[in-house]
Amino acid sequence: MGWNTWNHFGCGISEDTILSAAKALISNNLTSYGYEYVIVDDCWQAPARDPDTGAPVADPSKFPNGIKDVADQVHNMGLKFGIYSSAGTYTCGGRFGSLDHEEIDAKTYASWGVDYLKYDNCYNEGRAGTPKISYDRYANMTRALNATGRPILYSMCNWGEDGPWNFAVDIANSWRISGDIHDDFDRYDDRCPCTSILDCKLPGFHCAMSRIIDFAAPVGQKAGPGHWNDLDMLEVGNGGMNFDEYVTHFSMWALVKSPLILGNDITNMSNDTLTIITNAALIAVNQDPNGSPASRIWKRSLPEGGDLQLWQGSLVNNQFVFALMNTSPNPQTVNVSFTDVFVDQGASYQSGTFTLYDLWQKDPSSGAWGLNLGEFTGSVPNVQIGTHQTKVWKAVPVSTSQKRDRAEL
Amino acid sequence: MGWNTWNHFGCGISEDTILSAAKALISNNLTSYGYEYVIVDDCWQAPARDPDTGAPVADPSKFPNGIKDVADQVHNMGLKFGIYSSAGTYTCGGRFGSLDHEEIDAKTYASWGVDYLKYDNCYNEGRAGTPKISYDRYANMTRALNATGRPILYSMCNWGEDGPWNFAVDIANSWRISGDIHDDFDRYDDRCPCTSILDCKLPGFHCAMSRIIDFAAPVGQKAGPGHWNDLDMLEVGNGGMNFDEYVTHFSMWALVKSPLILGNDITNMSNDTLTIITNAALIAVNQDPNGSPASRIWKRSLPEGGDLQLWQGSLVNNQFVFALMNTSPNPQTVNVSFTDVFVDQGASYQSGTFTLYDLWQKDPSSGAWGLNLGEFTGSVPNVQIGTHQTKVWKAVPVSTSQKRDRAEL
Amino acid sequence: MGWNTWNHFGCGISEDTILSAAKALISNNLTSYGYEYVIVDDCWQAPARDPDTGAPVADPSKFPNGIKDVADQVHNMGLKFGIYSSAGTYTCGGRFGSLDHEEIDAKTYASWGVDYLKYDNCYNEGRAGTPKISYDRYANMTRALNATGRPILYSMCNWGEDGPWNFAVDIANSWRISGDIHDDFDRYDDRCPCTSILDCKLPGFHCAMSRIIDFAAPVGQKAGPGHWNDLDMLEVGNGGMNFDEYVTHFSMWALVKSPLILGNDITNMSNDTLTIITNAALIAVNQDPNGSPASRIWKRSLPEGGDLQLWQGSLVNNQFVFALMNTSPNPQTVNVSFTDVFVDQGASYQSGTFTLYDLWQKDPSSGAWGLNLGEFTGSVPNVQIGTHQTKVWKAVPVSTSQKRDRAEL
Amino acid sequence: MGWNTWNHFGCGISEDTILSAAKALISNNLTSYGYEYVIVDDCWQAPARDPDTGAPVADPSKFPNGIKDVADQVHNMGLKFGIYSSAGTYTCGGRFGSLDHEEIDAKTYASWGVDYLKYDNCYNEGRAGTPKISYDRYANMTRALNATGRPILYSMCNWGEDGPWNFAVDIANSWRISGDIHDDFDRYDDRCPCTSILDCKLPGFHCAMSRIIDFAAPVGQKAGPGHWNDLDMLEVGNGGMNFDEYVTHFSMWALVKSPLILGNDITNMSNDTLTIITNAALIAVNQDPNGSPASRIWKRSLPEGGDLQLWQGSLVNNQFVFALMNTSPNPQTVNVSFTDVFVDQGASYQSGTFTLYDLWQKDPSSGAWGLNLGEFTGSVPNVQIGTHQTKVWKAVPVSTSQKRDRAEL
Repeated sequence: MGWNTWNHFGCGISEDTILSAAKALISNNLTSYGYEYVIVDDCWQAPARDPDTGAPVADPSKFPNGIKDVADQVHNMGLKFGIYSSAGTYTCGGRFGSLDHEEIDAKTYASWGVDYLKYDNCYNEGRAGTPKISYDRYANMTRALNATGRPILYSMCNWGEDGPWNFAVDIANSWRISGDIHDDFDRYDDRCPCTSILDCKLPGFHCAMSRIIDFAAPVGQKAGPGHWNDLDMLEVGNGGMNFDEYVTHFSMWALVKSPLILGNDITNMSNDTLTIITNAALIAVNQDPNGSPASRIWKRSLPEGGDLQLWQGSLVNNQFVFALMNTSPNPQTVNVSFTDVFVDQGASYQSGTFTLYDLWQKDPSSGAWGLNLGEFTGSVPNVQIGTHQTKVWKAVPVSTSQKRDRAEL
Repeated sequence: MGWNTWNHFGCGISEDTILSAAKALISNNLTSYGYEYVIVDDCWQAPARDPDTGAPVADPSKFPNGIKDVADQVHNMGLKFGIYSSAGTYTCGGRFGSLDHEEIDAKTYASWGVDYLKYDNCYNEGRAGTPKISYDRYANMTRALNATGRPILYSMCNWGEDGPWNFAVDIANSWRISGDIHDDFDRYDDRCPCTSILDCKLPGFHCAMSRIIDFAAPVGQKAGPGHWNDLDMLEVGNGGMNFDEYVTHFSMWALVKSPLILGNDITNMSNDTLTIITNAALIAVNQDPNGSPASRIWKRSLPEGGDLQLWQGSLVNNQFVFALMNTSPNPQTVNVSFTDVFVDQGASYQSGTFTLYDLWQKDPSSGAWGLNLGEFTGSVPNVQIGTHQTKVWKAVPVSTSQKRDRAEL
Repeated sequence: MGWNTWNHFGCGISEDTILSAAKALISNNLTSYGYEYVIVDDCWQAPARDPDTGAPVADPSKFPNGIKDVADQVHNMGLKFGIYSSAGTYTCGGRFGSLDHEEIDAKTYASWGVDYLKYDNCYNEGRAGTPKISYDRYANMTRALNATGRPILYSMCNWGEDGPWNFAVDIANSWRISGDIHDDFDRYDDRCPCTSILDCKLPGFHCAMSRIIDFAAPVGQKAGPGHWNDLDMLEVGNGGMNFDEYVTHFSMWALVKSPLILGNDITNMSNDTLTIITNAALIAVNQDPNGSPASRIWKRSLPEGGDLQLWQGSLVNNQFVFALMNTSPNPQTVNVSFTDVFVDQGASYQSGTFTLYDLWQKDPSSGAWGLNLGEFTGSVPNVQIGTHQTKVWKAVPVSTSQKRDRAEL
Repeated sequence: MGWNTWNHFGCGISEDTILSAAKALISNNLTSYGYEYVIVDDCWQAPARDPDTGAPVADPSKFPNGIKDVADQVHNMGLKFGIYSSAGTYTCGGRFGSLDHEEIDAKTYASWGVDYLKYDNCYNEGRAGTPKISYDRYANMTRALNATGRPILYSMCNWGEDGPWNFAVDIANSWRISGDIHDDFDRYDDRCPCTSILDCKLPGFHCAMSRIIDFAAPVGQKAGPGHWNDLDMLEVGNGGMNFDEYVTHFSMWALVKSPLILGNDITNMSNDTLTIITNAALIAVNQDPNGSPASRIWKRSLPEGGDLQLWQGSLVNNQFVFALMNTSPNPQTVNVSFTDVFVDQGASYQSGTFTLYDLWQKDPSSGAWGLNLGEFTGSVPNVQIGTHQTKVWKAVPVSTSQKRDRAEL
């Protein structure tokens, strides 16, 4: 969890951008919710590496005191500091890349006090096309980072090429699964042309938020503690979606356990934006120690366009989270059957009784997220769900004697 | 044929799990039907290899006397013993894998008296993507097993990646063709996303039983004596399907000549379960010396959803087996034409007369599976077949002078 | 053009099979039509190579005098002799293959007087998956054959894997484009599962004849003199199709310039079979010195199932051949427009006048194939075409001054 | 921008063809519009390289004074000179190719004064199938060209195989994205079989013009200054399309910033042809210093067949170009909403006011392309667009204070 410069500022960054954001994380109390990484995305680099050492150099006009100074200041505020490069000859923004410079770059990052590396895929000289080729290219940076001795989170950004959910589970902490997100609910854009990410030859960008949710459905199974699917940075607060749509966005990122990296201008947020990104109940789902991404139980196309989707995940202490999402243009009424919700847990759960909490309502007495709706058996009947809305429930078994029918891994 | 720990017990295994199952194979008389392998799946391993020799070590809390002791006891009961590893840095359950440790592992398994190796595909470091890359990775274990001098069945489990039916025919005894089976008749699950296995980039798991039958249809042609398609372990008796559905499951596994590896708790079986897994007529089809997997003759989609399927296979002595399967929600009435049943045998068979035996009914006098239905010419008329049912017939030519129209290989 | 043992005899071959067929080629006067290669397909091999030299050895029970003796006899009849092997460790019939034995095998074939090699793809140890890998495997035999100094036609049979129409144009004389043909007009068979051959991961076999025509449509552009698409051996006369269907089969193989290799029992042919395979007008189309495979101009699906297809090709001397094919279950009436027929030649041809010859009718006076239908301008109106029929016309421009609108390569 | 021999003359070229075309570029004043390269396509080569040096040699019957002499004459006219070869053993026309002869060939081209190389993909010995393999083959020529010291534009022509928009961005100045264009608006031809170019295994040829526009839609994002998508040479003036269709052709090539290489006989042009290729407003769009290819905003299928498409691109100085294209058989009336046109620029643009210029009408007073249509807010209402027509507007914000909502790269 943290914040990244790209979605809002693009290449228009400087020392001030970073430090202002770091201060805003604190002044807005976002740190208490778990947001702690401040990440400089592309365009921090000088036009060229150090001609003598070959080491990376920051753009002196943007970072007159260098990156280490900024990182130190960020650390002094109790935050962590992230940086960006690309596993190519150039970065996507055309700056020098790290391909075949992994050692010197990792060493330099470590010397600067970097805690996190986002590692992109532009200008890769065609070193892709089979999992083996991509693995070798990205594992070079894994080795270089490990050799520094400094713990640095390794966030791969190869847009899902060659299936990082298969090949990268033991070389990276997370991997992007698709082309770049666009601040839009569901518009199809030719620049994000693939209908599935399993063998996508052009991940592209301008991928609408709900399309990325579709992309995420099959690959959740491959994520777990220390190796996560990254659905890309959050657009909450950037203005392209309405409140319900951003709630859907934040809810689903939380459930599938994507990194929650803010991408808006956190120095200037509306109350709505702050409300969404500080839903502690959803953040708890995202950070649940069980580390089990939610799965999609069903997706039902609707005649008016769009669909309804049911997702479910396991939490610690034999608790569960499930969500109903409506991407159609109309409000819908749905009976959410426990036969579906607990399809992975078996008959005793399907017929069980659960206390449900609505995670997008607050408890009126404590003010905490999660309104106790009472006990339910068999289903949640007659759920009214608006267009582009998502409802999220936590389910706690009433009788603690209930056990899953069969052991999971 | 045998039994494996995974489908029922997952990682919750121990010496006792194995020995109890071995005893149950005997006490339930399953050995007389041919079930003889007792296979320990994932999670038998200690946290780490032997630090001095690099040899694999069993988890001492689960196997206090080591694997060899268990294998010896299994052998002493007249059974065979199987074990599990992965062609990756880790197993799917996160234990140490055998990738680049093939020699020491094979040698150790042989020294333990292992008769069967299930060899999985997790954490393979991206060594997949072309048949050549996958072949090289799996052939390393072939060589290592052969070098031990001990005959060890080699059961590849790479989930069909890169087409093992093409590349593995001379390096393995069987290969899994798809993602893991789920104890369910036909539910689509996003975690088993491919609609064909011929170039599936995410085999996944939670593949419903009848979807695996669809997957198996094109690849039966590639299997034969000593190199089989493995449709995954049986779910019969695990509770997710009803009697007719498990009959369908067992019938089709038998016809396509998949290994029949039980996956239920054989220490605690219902009569229905026992009835199905001890159908000696179907087991005879599975073990037929001709070694020719059944082919799907046709699949007809039905307007109410689901389909009807006709399968046929050749047996020794110029006999045949054919099956009608109904995956639709409604009972159906079908004329099964001999023009279809004998499409591969040609005109003289299509117009011939056959004695038919219903392999899911017993002969009332002998009590043996296979009720003589009399002689049929041209078709089996008006077959009533319930929802999710499969009917299986053995066909014996009445006139022995009938010969196939053209030679097969 | 020639004859091959496989389609009719499979593995049931011997010296007598070959010599009888050679004699039948002569006694039936087929040699005068151009059929000259007598090809021994799989199963001619002894169980093992010569233990001392590693050279291939023939099965002494089938070929007691060896292959050279048979080849000599074939040569003495004025015919050419072909043989079979596989670019794998085994042949498809399980005999020893030539992979990594290319030199000794090519040298031995040359010493036997072999004029033609069919080179199959079974048991290839996964050496496929990119054009480069397949090219390298098959080019090894090209080099070995060339090194012998004896001209040997090289007929690749890798079933279209990795696109031989792209990679094999300068290493082979022909390449199979799909899985094996089945003696059937259009039945879908799960064992030939691909709907396109452009990236087919399981070419399989039991491919119905008209499906292979569909497969051939896009790849005709890649063939030319010395490097041809091979649609597989002919089934004419093997009994699975009727007269009109075999006419369609022979016509389309001729138009796309596939090798015409007979696959029936030529020692025992019906008049119908002989009539079809000795249509000299179609054979002339197949052997036209222009060497330009026909292209499909359009394919129109019909509501009753099946389709109509129009094909056209260029012949020497500014002549053309075009064909109308009806795969539907009903007779059809079609106006064949010259705008379509001459779509590649441009406006002056589209508005031109042509003398048309029906190549499946004979001239009543000369008795030669090709009935003069008179002059046509603009179209061939009201063509009546029966179910599964194909009509073939040769078009000769009436005014010789007509020239194509633009230069072709 | 320039002219190439192939589309009109094919292999029928000579010194005279080149020099006549060069003179026609000047006499028709095309040079003043920016057309400056005169490019010799395939078939300029002698039957064999120089047997002593291995250097390429021109066909003495076509180029009796050699290529250098022709290039000198072209240079003396103030034009630039281009040549052709293939990254294969042979060129597509069967002449010697440059594969594994890159150094000697590049050096020879430079010594001849070549300014541009079109580098094809035929007979590539299967060196394709992954981006890495294709990159290596084409980068060999990049290195060779760079080593000459002479600036030579490098125009890759690998038909989009393995995704040059991914792998070739830093090794080539442009790359073809598909199979060869055919002088036809929208006819489907089996010889251009792929429906998407993202993983097309047979790019082929005879690709209708509007199909190439479809192919181009997803890959525009990958082009930019110095590295462009090449949609193939222009067919304007070759006779296969009508005026409106050629306007569509020229408009879309200009918007997506494809190279504009004339392919007609420029020594003999109609007024219509000259009108289209000298639309200076469209040429300015193509050559806009911003270098940003237009994107497709939407494509709407129509019940009568075909579709409507809206495209938009950014120009320098905060100006925009957008186009409406009608591939359907009927005229259409469309409201072009600014919400769509400025979907990438955000709310302030979508609600802004713009002066629009119709780039296919001339200003009556100046006679320059681009008729001022006045100010528009919210939409361009009731646009009448004929069948196969394209309308192109330039949009200039009325209030210069409008800024994009968020920074782009």
